[in-house]
Amino acid sequence: MFKTVRGMRDLLPKSAQKMRHIERVARDVSKLYGYEEIITPVLESYELLAAKTSEEIRDRMYKFEDLGGRKVAMRPEFTASVARLVVNKLKNEPKPMRLFSTGSLYRYDEPQYGRFREFWQANYELFGSTRPEADAEILMLTNNVLKNLGLKNYRFKVGHSGILLGILTQEGLDDQQQNSVRQLLDKKEWNEALTVAKKVGVSKNGLEVLTSILEMMGEDPWEDLVQIKKRVQDYSTAVEAVNNLQKIVKLVQDSGEQLELQVEAGFARGLEYYTGMIFETYVPGLDIAIGGGGRYDKLIELFGGEPIPAVGVAQGIDRIVLALTKQKAAPKTPKQKTAAVIAIKPICMGKALEISAMLRKKGVFVELAVMGRSIRSALSDANRREVDYAVILGPKELKENMVVLKNMKKEEQRTVSIDSLVQEILAASS
Amino acid sequence: MFKTVRGMRDLLPKSAQKMRHIERVARDVSKLYGYEEIITPVLESYELLAAKTSEEIRDRMYKFEDLGGRKVAMRPEFTASVARLVVNKLKNEPKPMRLFSTGSLYRYDEPQYGRFREFWQANYELFGSTRPEADAEILMLTNNVLKNLGLKNYRFKVGHSGILLGILTQEGLDDQQQNSVRQLLDKKEWNEALTVAKKVGVSKNGLEVLTSILEMMGEDPWEDLVQIKKRVQDYSTAVEAVNNLQKIVKLVQDSGEQLELQVEAGFARGLEYYTGMIFETYVPGLDIAIGGGGRYDKLIELFGGEPIPAVGVAQGIDRIVLALTKQKAAPKTPKQKTAAVIAIKPICMGKALEISAMLRKKGVFVELAVMGRSIRSALSDANRREVDYAVILGPKELKENMVVLKNMKKEEQRTVSIDSLVQEILAASS
Repeated sequence: MFKTVRGMRDLLPKSAQKMRHIERVARDVSKLYGYEEIITPVLESYELLAAKTSEEIRDRMYKFEDLGGRKVAMRPEFTASVARLVVNKLKNEPKPMRLFSTGSLYRYDEPQYGRFREFWQANYELFGSTRPEADAEILMLTNNVLKNLGLKNYRFKVGHSGILLGILTQEGLDDQQQNSVRQLLDKKEWNEALTVAKKVGVSKNGLEVLTSILEMMGEDPWEDLVQIKKRVQDYSTAVEAVNNLQKIVKLVQDSGEQLELQVEAGFARGLEYYTGMIFETYVPGLDIAIGGGGRYDKLIELFGGEPIPAVGVAQGIDRIVLALTKQKAAPKTPKQKTAAVIAIKPICMGKALEISAMLRKKGVFVELAVMGRSIRSALSDANRREVDYAVILGPKELKENMVVLKNMKKEEQRTVSIDSLVQEILAASS
Repeated sequence: MFKTVRGMRDLLPKSAQKMRHIERVARDVSKLYGYEEIITPVLESYELLAAKTSEEIRDRMYKFEDLGGRKVAMRPEFTASVARLVVNKLKNEPKPMRLFSTGSLYRYDEPQYGRFREFWQANYELFGSTRPEADAEILMLTNNVLKNLGLKNYRFKVGHSGILLGILTQEGLDDQQQNSVRQLLDKKEWNEALTVAKKVGVSKNGLEVLTSILEMMGEDPWEDLVQIKKRVQDYSTAVEAVNNLQKIVKLVQDSGEQLELQVEAGFARGLEYYTGMIFETYVPGLDIAIGGGGRYDKLIELFGGEPIPAVGVAQGIDRIVLALTKQKAAPKTPKQKTAAVIAIKPICMGKALEISAMLRKKGVFVELAVMGRSIRSALSDANRREVDYAVILGPKELKENMVVLKNMKKEEQRTVSIDSLVQEILAASS
């Protein structure tokens, strides 16, 4: 018996519906905010995908040679593809340029709850603006997606890559030393991070500042930022970073958007290319982030283009599915009327197809009975499928241009004219 | 400079929009007909994908070993994955079972017009019914998708795998001999097909019958079927096939659906697993089929399951994009109002975010000005983006809870209260 490859999943109708619903909401929000969708291939050159990613991701790529001997890989993230596209084809587009992309990504991670080898993201990127309103927009649209999906009690963990950078640079650490500290902070191994920081030469004052900002528990974002600024006051770049984050947070608060922000000064989001605000979104009871992003003003340069500032977010569709399932949040979709159309005799089948088409044209979801079952058995099938109505076609009624309309929930049936059938079904509260 | 891998494409916003529009229409139609969506992985075991496909497809798969040493490949079609899913997880679901799937597929074909190494399909499969109304439903939903997309002058080429099978089997040809004839017919190399048929022992009568049905030009499907039945009368299985196709065609005609059918008795659709009606859809000026399908009652058995009859269609989304572009058919989507929201001073930006959110809640597509440009330059940008309105926020007006609303096409502007802004924008004909 054939199986799925380890780590790959089939989504059965209920899961697939949730996943497509999230994708649709994400796309609707992209339009509301002026983000234009682009589609890049799943398969890219390994060279491109490996160029600027983390070692961890690089080692877990599905890479191989295609039949033409090209080194290729299945994309593990959208970043490199979007950067490539911007550099090659969109660099002269007027700014701001807002891009949306969604699709599947591939990483050979150890399969576990919330981590799949094939997973989906919805990705928004705003190119061309360095201003705090661009950062605020990304936070607000992320909120918009989650809110429109009916998710509750989610929170935004926010920070700024310039805080740690400012402190560690002024303390004389080179890139590699900074990375080793940041990677430990990213895993929340704070003691280890401080030990390494001490070892590579961070001063006593530096260690105290780091400790004091790591210990802060996010309560009120505005108060926290004031506190952090006080504590990092000896590090001018870190102060600038806090100033920038204050502007972003103030804009979000002034907009009146209900959005739970928690500032974490020691927040070091994995990827090294962030240059400003960074954030991740969480729901209670799910340890893993359901989305994350930030500002990466150097990205396009890294891929060989002229510098273009950028801020963006990737929302984890699979993880949002898990979050919605956990919260038992049902998609807010308008309930469509459903009907089974049943021909009693083969001779009525042409008319059954015609009536099905007529109902569908008015938005009724129609399942045509195609098994040649007896009327009793067909009705029992319709019942199991929980359709609102059965439309039954017999030769006698058809001669008079009539059909039998059965309300399945009320278990009432009556003969109605074909001309009034649509009206009867749409008007009734089922 | 990094590039896409040969044969892979980026879809820029205009193409991506078309592609997503087709996907959405295809999904909407699936719901109207009761098809439930499933999502299977892009990456499957090579063994599964290679098991029952044609040699041509097998040789052009993107296959490799994953990091765990498993032989895997990127799916070149949906068939094997759906069959696997049905056999493993859905075999006991009540029949009929209707499944929809859409996504990207991969074949290492020589890139050319309408043929891409990464391409998309929308796939519908109806399991459990052997009856002609099931076949008719597949034809009608295919028509429904193309009609809803605004495509014109497309036609259905229909045939029945049982016609050739009936003749060639009765003539004593084994499977391999039949395949060699069928493959030539599939490429429309009729003379070569007849030569091979003669060589492998088809009788003089057989050759005459084959020639006579190959020569028929499809005019009126009903008349053609009557003619074909006469000509194949010595071959009982072929006669049964024509009878079956007649029932299907009659149902479609009785339904009143406007659907241009052309019967081709010598039609031999590539894949060997078809057991009944086969069809392909075409538009003028595009040589390649934009979709195709048929009945394959033995498929599930081939993949190790209990026999379940099946009929289905795969619509080529990329090719429909080409067809729509050729016909200059624009997506029938409701025109949304669009606005640029511009804060004259940084101090107005919080309010600009708030007003943007308010407009989006009512379905207005809003682009927030995030470049810190002068009002003049921001308006010129809004003009280039062809938005319907600019909403301009200055400190003076905001104090009185007012903003300036500019109709960009009429080049008229006036001061309106924030409370009435949504109403003003939604009510106006832009």
